[in-house]
Amino acid sequence: MKTSIFYLKAKIIDIEARVAWIVVLNKLDCQKLGIKPGDGLVMHLKGQSIGVYVDVTDDLVKEGEVGIFEDLSHRFEIEQGERLEFSFLGKPKSLDAIQSKLLGKGLNYSEMYSIVSDIVSRKLNDVAVAFFVASSFFEKISTKELFYLTKAMAETGKKIKFPGIVADKHSVGGLCGNETTPIIVPIIASFGIYIPKTCSRAITSASGTADTMETVARVAFSTKELINIVKKTKGCIVWGVGDIVPSDARIIEVASQLLIESYPKLISSIIAKKVAMGVKYLVIDIPVNKYAKIKNKKEAEELKKLFEDITKRFKIKTHVSINYAKGPIGRGIGPALQVYDDLLVLEQKENRPRDLEERATELAGYILELVGKARKGRGKEMAKSALKSGKALEKFREIVKAQGGDPEISSKKIQLGKISFQMKAKRNGRVKEINNHHLVEIARILGAPFIKSAGIYLNKKGGESFYKGETLFTFYTETSFRLHLALKTLKTKSFLKT
Amino acid sequence: MKTSIFYLKAKIIDIEARVAWIVVLNKLDCQKLGIKPGDGLVMHLKGQSIGVYVDVTDDLVKEGEVGIFEDLSHRFEIEQGERLEFSFLGKPKSLDAIQSKLLGKGLNYSEMYSIVSDIVSRKLNDVAVAFFVASSFFEKISTKELFYLTKAMAETGKKIKFPGIVADKHSVGGLCGNETTPIIVPIIASFGIYIPKTCSRAITSASGTADTMETVARVAFSTKELINIVKKTKGCIVWGVGDIVPSDARIIEVASQLLIESYPKLISSIIAKKVAMGVKYLVIDIPVNKYAKIKNKKEAEELKKLFEDITKRFKIKTHVSINYAKGPIGRGIGPALQVYDDLLVLEQKENRPRDLEERATELAGYILELVGKARKGRGKEMAKSALKSGKALEKFREIVKAQGGDPEISSKKIQLGKISFQMKAKRNGRVKEINNHHLVEIARILGAPFIKSAGIYLNKKGGESFYKGETLFTFYTETSFRLHLALKTLKTKSFLKT
Repeated sequence: MKTSIFYLKAKIIDIEARVAWIVVLNKLDCQKLGIKPGDGLVMHLKGQSIGVYVDVTDDLVKEGEVGIFEDLSHRFEIEQGERLEFSFLGKPKSLDAIQSKLLGKGLNYSEMYSIVSDIVSRKLNDVAVAFFVASSFFEKISTKELFYLTKAMAETGKKIKFPGIVADKHSVGGLCGNETTPIIVPIIASFGIYIPKTCSRAITSASGTADTMETVARVAFSTKELINIVKKTKGCIVWGVGDIVPSDARIIEVASQLLIESYPKLISSIIAKKVAMGVKYLVIDIPVNKYAKIKNKKEAEELKKLFEDITKRFKIKTHVSINYAKGPIGRGIGPALQVYDDLLVLEQKENRPRDLEERATELAGYILELVGKARKGRGKEMAKSALKSGKALEKFREIVKAQGGDPEISSKKIQLGKISFQMKAKRNGRVKEINNHHLVEIARILGAPFIKSAGIYLNKKGGESFYKGETLFTFYTETSFRLHLALKTLKTKSFLKT
Repeated sequence: MKTSIFYLKAKIIDIEARVAWIVVLNKLDCQKLGIKPGDGLVMHLKGQSIGVYVDVTDDLVKEGEVGIFEDLSHRFEIEQGERLEFSFLGKPKSLDAIQSKLLGKGLNYSEMYSIVSDIVSRKLNDVAVAFFVASSFFEKISTKELFYLTKAMAETGKKIKFPGIVADKHSVGGLCGNETTPIIVPIIASFGIYIPKTCSRAITSASGTADTMETVARVAFSTKELINIVKKTKGCIVWGVGDIVPSDARIIEVASQLLIESYPKLISSIIAKKVAMGVKYLVIDIPVNKYAKIKNKKEAEELKKLFEDITKRFKIKTHVSINYAKGPIGRGIGPALQVYDDLLVLEQKENRPRDLEERATELAGYILELVGKARKGRGKEMAKSALKSGKALEKFREIVKAQGGDPEISSKKIQLGKISFQMKAKRNGRVKEINNHHLVEIARILGAPFIKSAGIYLNKKGGESFYKGETLFTFYTETSFRLHLALKTLKTKSFLKT
């Protein structure tokens, strides 16, 4: 029925869905065309073929009209009354490839490309994406297939080329705090090296780097805007740009419903973006902690090897740094609190979190060594010099300005939650360890990452002593309801072991 | 955040979605509550907890209101203005079990029950269901796990008990025609045996038995109505009833997006319904043909063994009958054409499809032998006697009447498509074989199963000779456009090999 094309007139409907791209058809049109609720159609628009799903109505849209939800009309700039072309979706060919993979067959590049490309155009629905995720992220896929997947993810979006050395840093995450990016990016950029950092929002954590940065600047930009920012300042800290690796958001959305860490997902997601951004030098940070995403040496080494294998195939010079962390790095947990920590380091304040400074300069140092700016073993020192000279702070403010933020940003200007609660020590003691899971759960109850000013400040961390009456940690939030819930949860999920 | 309950006032929205159960919230409420589009909520309604997903609007519903889509309001009888109670969905525990299964761990009954129960309440969304399907339908699951799954599917819905012998017949399908049910049910019921047959609509075929029966009677009933019909007539031929094995529809909806036949899906879906209907005697029909679902002896024997193992655990006396079919059974392909064939057999017309009569009475005979009505080897004969005496036809009309159809139904009254096309033989010859796949594809292009009167009549079948000018097959449809497409498709996908 591929030949069968039909036209409907757009009527914008003020609903934003997320589950799928939805169009609403009148019941009479559906009967005429043999369409049922939930059926798939292809919308042909500005040279693109977009998979959409049908809701049915008696009178919300009239015969000959098609209701277009807000998110869809916004994304594809569909005008009220626009004449839209549709055809039947049928069964996408890429579904055969997913089917094969579910039955254990390996995929070649062209099959992998067809899957990723149909994920982007939404010709594959979320259920099909879930089948793909299940077939490829939990079963062993070969390094070759993982390379194909990563390549397909990079190739199905826009690619950028900057006129010079392009480096980057990425942490696999999973440890609280550890917000080194806002320190590393300005350090590297201050040496004239391109570092176009795209980062993600939190899925299960208390703050993704995009959430953190958004406290002081805009993070959502078009590719064109991103290029302009980086051309001006050499660096940026922005949220994943929609048309660079556009498959990633959908894959993550589906895969993240399970809380299993999947290396293929992790690696393809990270490396595809580096490939698309033209990154040639890369430092990967793998924090290891029993409460973190990567729990032990075995897991870390396995992941390191995979990163090395895949980046080699893309000819990206890579250093993978495994960090056996005792607990959270830095003291702030939550968007505002994390950028506050970063600013303390950039401003070289006395009370800055030293562990965060050490880790950030170590990673920045590896980049400087990789690109040949610093001699082997001298990178960290060089990175620290950019902090001491104030050049990194100056560069950070330049980037914040370019991203639409306050060019005079400082730690003092960071707004923390208007409701705070200080937990005082009832006796003298020493913090033994911090349970990352409980810490995140409570930070999220306080409102992080959606409420920027919410979170937890760890006044005392693992290994530190305290006296009776000293503050152990501080909660920040905006409503007494959230504080109430957090304190209630703390009773069963204490994160501080003393 | 489990403790956090909130209330909103229902506003019914005239949209029928199928993808998920959707509620629409005002943007301001979302900001207040920290809800994003696509987030899950639990709606607490009449003692049930129902998983719903959030769409967001600026003004389609006001603050304090919640937009309820038609399908949801209809299903749960939600009134305009009703005060509805919600809480946050969080991560359902059953997702942990699915996660374990994806990683290769076996599931116990309580885990399986939690998954199926959350599928029913929609606390698991379609993506999670897809993960479950991928984890359990393509990997080997043990017979024990399959038993647990089947039991959980039966136990999470209503169960019925009839006061007498309850038998049933089920075909695993996949072969065109083979519409034996409307012949078998009245035969068995005419002997005073309960045969409460629930059947499905076509997913990929030209007509499911529910589609076929719907040509002459209603097929959608509540459990209460079904019980009344069966108490009156001993038999019924109805579409799967919503609250009997309610998990089945969702699992099938998700699994059917892949065209891989999965034995665990097939068996759990069939047997759970038999268990819920209190069936104690069961005949399973496995048609085997290179173009059918089950392609060879090996597959058929494997499936047979699985059926025997599972039904034994439920103490259902079962006969599995493998049928090596040369091609379609009967001549009609499409809802009306299939019931037309059945009526020719019930009416014992000279031109009735003999192969269909043979197969139907064979299967009915096995049931009569299983329940002890007929001696071993004499069941088929007894079944035929019910056809010859007219008792089966009388019973069929009784059932049709009880299901709201014409009590005087006959083959002459069946409406076939108003546009027909007869393919004439251009030379003398003989039909070698019929390609089931192409046959179905073209029948569906003609409109089957959605257009009841559409389909293909095979005037000549495999093994039959024809003379130049004789009709080989006839197309029936309702629009010239569909006929045009079907004839075009026929050029590359001829189903008749001569």
